[in-house]
Amino acid sequence: MTDRDFLGIEDWSWVEIERLLALATRVKRGEVEGGLERRIMAMVFLDPSLRTRTSFESAMYLHGGLAVTIEPGAGSWSWELDPDAVMDGTNVENIVEAARVLGRYADVVGIRAFPRGDDWAVAREDRLIRTFAEHCEKPVVNLESARQHPCQALGDTLTIKEKFPEPSGRRFVVSWAYHPKPLPTAVPVSAALAAARLGMDVVIARPDGYEFDPDDTALLRKTIREAGGVLHTTDDMDEACTGADAVYAKSWGSLRDFGRPEAELQRRKDLRDWRLTEERVALTRGGKGLVMHCLPVRRNVEIDADVLDGPNSVVIDQAENRLHVQRALLLTLTGHPAAGDLS
Amino acid sequence: MTDRDFLGIEDWSWVEIERLLALATRVKRGEVEGGLERRIMAMVFLDPSLRTRTSFESAMYLHGGLAVTIEPGAGSWSWELDPDAVMDGTNVENIVEAARVLGRYADVVGIRAFPRGDDWAVAREDRLIRTFAEHCEKPVVNLESARQHPCQALGDTLTIKEKFPEPSGRRFVVSWAYHPKPLPTAVPVSAALAAARLGMDVVIARPDGYEFDPDDTALLRKTIREAGGVLHTTDDMDEACTGADAVYAKSWGSLRDFGRPEAELQRRKDLRDWRLTEERVALTRGGKGLVMHCLPVRRNVEIDADVLDGPNSVVIDQAENRLHVQRALLLTLTGHPAAGDLS
Amino acid sequence: MTDRDFLGIEDWSWVEIERLLALATRVKRGEVEGGLERRIMAMVFLDPSLRTRTSFESAMYLHGGLAVTIEPGAGSWSWELDPDAVMDGTNVENIVEAARVLGRYADVVGIRAFPRGDDWAVAREDRLIRTFAEHCEKPVVNLESARQHPCQALGDTLTIKEKFPEPSGRRFVVSWAYHPKPLPTAVPVSAALAAARLGMDVVIARPDGYEFDPDDTALLRKTIREAGGVLHTTDDMDEACTGADAVYAKSWGSLRDFGRPEAELQRRKDLRDWRLTEERVALTRGGKGLVMHCLPVRRNVEIDADVLDGPNSVVIDQAENRLHVQRALLLTLTGHPAAGDLS
Repeated sequence: MTDRDFLGIEDWSWVEIERLLALATRVKRGEVEGGLERRIMAMVFLDPSLRTRTSFESAMYLHGGLAVTIEPGAGSWSWELDPDAVMDGTNVENIVEAARVLGRYADVVGIRAFPRGDDWAVAREDRLIRTFAEHCEKPVVNLESARQHPCQALGDTLTIKEKFPEPSGRRFVVSWAYHPKPLPTAVPVSAALAAARLGMDVVIARPDGYEFDPDDTALLRKTIREAGGVLHTTDDMDEACTGADAVYAKSWGSLRDFGRPEAELQRRKDLRDWRLTEERVALTRGGKGLVMHCLPVRRNVEIDADVLDGPNSVVIDQAENRLHVQRALLLTLTGHPAAGDLS
Repeated sequence: MTDRDFLGIEDWSWVEIERLLALATRVKRGEVEGGLERRIMAMVFLDPSLRTRTSFESAMYLHGGLAVTIEPGAGSWSWELDPDAVMDGTNVENIVEAARVLGRYADVVGIRAFPRGDDWAVAREDRLIRTFAEHCEKPVVNLESARQHPCQALGDTLTIKEKFPEPSGRRFVVSWAYHPKPLPTAVPVSAALAAARLGMDVVIARPDGYEFDPDDTALLRKTIREAGGVLHTTDDMDEACTGADAVYAKSWGSLRDFGRPEAELQRRKDLRDWRLTEERVALTRGGKGLVMHCLPVRRNVEIDADVLDGPNSVVIDQAENRLHVQRALLLTLTGHPAAGDLS
Repeated sequence: MTDRDFLGIEDWSWVEIERLLALATRVKRGEVEGGLERRIMAMVFLDPSLRTRTSFESAMYLHGGLAVTIEPGAGSWSWELDPDAVMDGTNVENIVEAARVLGRYADVVGIRAFPRGDDWAVAREDRLIRTFAEHCEKPVVNLESARQHPCQALGDTLTIKEKFPEPSGRRFVVSWAYHPKPLPTAVPVSAALAAARLGMDVVIARPDGYEFDPDDTALLRKTIREAGGVLHTTDDMDEACTGADAVYAKSWGSLRDFGRPEAELQRRKDLRDWRLTEERVALTRGGKGLVMHCLPVRRNVEIDADVLDGPNSVVIDQAENRLHVQRALLLTLTGHPAAGDLS
């Protein structure tokens, strides 16, 4: 057993990630059986999930383990997220005790917590998941926090590598898309970091006002530089798609209006054209650029139905690969011999 | 693995059903172990469940498999049920992507979706479950749709055969009963079809205005004719019960008032006498007619407590048999050698 | 298989409890594997849970079994708790049928139901869990009812024995603590009974008006007398803590105001000083008295954060021990050879 957490894709070295992806490929081929017998993963969902929950429950099971799902406030006690609170309000269980207790029952603990509150300066600290990890004695896996969705990044990386065995130098576009609600930046940041680590040239396309958090941009810049790629930013979706090898079309909210959805909606009201259409797919390299999305996707709003259902779309492969990378992640975290040692 | 769905009891030939029932009997006796190792069933519940969920989770487990339960809108994303929708409203995940993704994680996918909306002409198309099955690459099992509940029909068939090894020619009554709310017709239609296939004479007892959908009646008539039975319809519950070998007392809503519960309530306000009482049980053949219900049952409203708790009641056996027929169904769908080939 | 229920700690003889605890110790050391293959536990939660649900799911799994969780009213049908009701209201499933059906699917059935209604004379009868057990043909485990939480009592007993191999004659304090809401008396009563059975001297510290139900006090008195301990009651938390070997600081509601939370709040409005502080911990025997709580705990309201996080606290051990005693309980109820026979 390791005591390493998996909170951000940058927490693990590229050697470790590559080893994990190699294991994922073997796992997907059916070459690795068992390894999680008598192992338990506890998953805490403070926000909804389809793929994450189903794929982790399946991942544990396929190797002999068990995943237990906890939903605070729905069947389980509502959580107080501040360890120092005087708990005389409505929240019943403090995150400190929850983290400690689940660390006793489980071998690995996952937690999903989207950003909360109306102050990005606070939300960006990702204090909830960091507090949880601090108090949990077992490895903690980020199932999507305010800042990152590293399991999605792993699945995206495997998907890209399957389609492009030599991804280095290829053009990977993360493009903002319209959506009726402001969403977290965790997925687009994680996708960009994944592509960056693969040595791809990364294009961020977004309207003015939709910049990532400066620290995320700095991390992205550093990651790209180290891997030998180039970062390009544009506010023109057509330009971004032109010659792209992959377009990850995904909405996120403006951090300038964080916590003020009405103002944010005002900002985006004329941006419905930021939608991945067949015309834009035709602009990609040879018209064959991959169409990517983490799901759930707003059909005909983020991406047109024709595109989602068309030959360029790999969104279902991305979802499937969540399963395989997570099987590899769980085997690695629990010290399976088929996985390499974590440094 | 087969790619056959199980959406309606008539989708499978009588030979296939009989083979499945024979396997269910062996399974119930404990003669078939394993067979679902490394198999996953994903279950989607758009409506509540006790028996269906518990029995499928148990069924998968008892043969080495795993059932994962998803509740859209409660812990999982809310679903848009129209594949062509411009998804700029509140629903987050389209049924198309959900079906495709779950088909990647699971070997079998079940889905429950009661009728929705206020237009029977639309609801009767059962488009939700058909759309799901169309986009899911794995076998889809109907866990109760607008029109049918075929797993219940299998459980009912096994229960009848256990009590009547020669059911042919016996009198099987599906009787409307009072209930404070209009319910779907899926269960009474499925129960009537199950009895019809066994060659039983089927009596439908219901007040005026509570006719089944004409297509269901036509299918029932055809099924009865092919199996050699007789169909009789009455608006007199006493007459129906007289000489009955089994009475399936179950409420359903008038399709004439579909989607207008207030009007429906008005229609049924004087029909509280449609209740299975000890007096009516005494009218059955030798006073020994089986009392059947799919559960949950409204005690003292659909069926009197004395009757439910009395010697004629087989409602708990019906519920138990859900487990065994579903074990056989899952083994069949996944190609277990103990199951016959599906044509 | 036994048909013994586990509804209250006093239902089992001390010989049986000691045998169970010995098995729990072996289980915790990893000396007992398997034993629950092809066994199913159904758990019904009418109230929230973190530890109970997670630890029972883990317990079944660790020995090869499966736990299925049902939440009436959330994903499963809402329950009518009166077997004699004329069910023409909103509740869909009667507890009688639910108990019978779950008894068919499962080998053991657990149920959690906190006190309901506004009349203690009714709630104290614990009719819900007793009705359920009466109609369920399999062993029923109390996952916390209006009157007791016997699984918590087992976990507490194991924790005390681990810390005090000779608990007899030691001073065990159950102290009321402030809380923003009136809670059930099930846990403090169960904890006191657990300590009593260990032969400890039991001190109940509570403000005037917070007496236990007279029957619980009588049972406690009888249990203490039989085990050779002494019962002491006080309304002074400092006095109670002085020289204590363990302080179980836990809030409960005044039964005099049962069902009237506003009046109860009025009663406790000046009682915020009933809080386990470092000063009070310093009063315990050598300053080393154990700090106990069943969790979830209101940090800085029932017990100060410094105390919970400090060296005296065994609250996380208590939670972990829930797992091990329940593994032993399940092995015992299903007749595992490593468990002794139940009388």
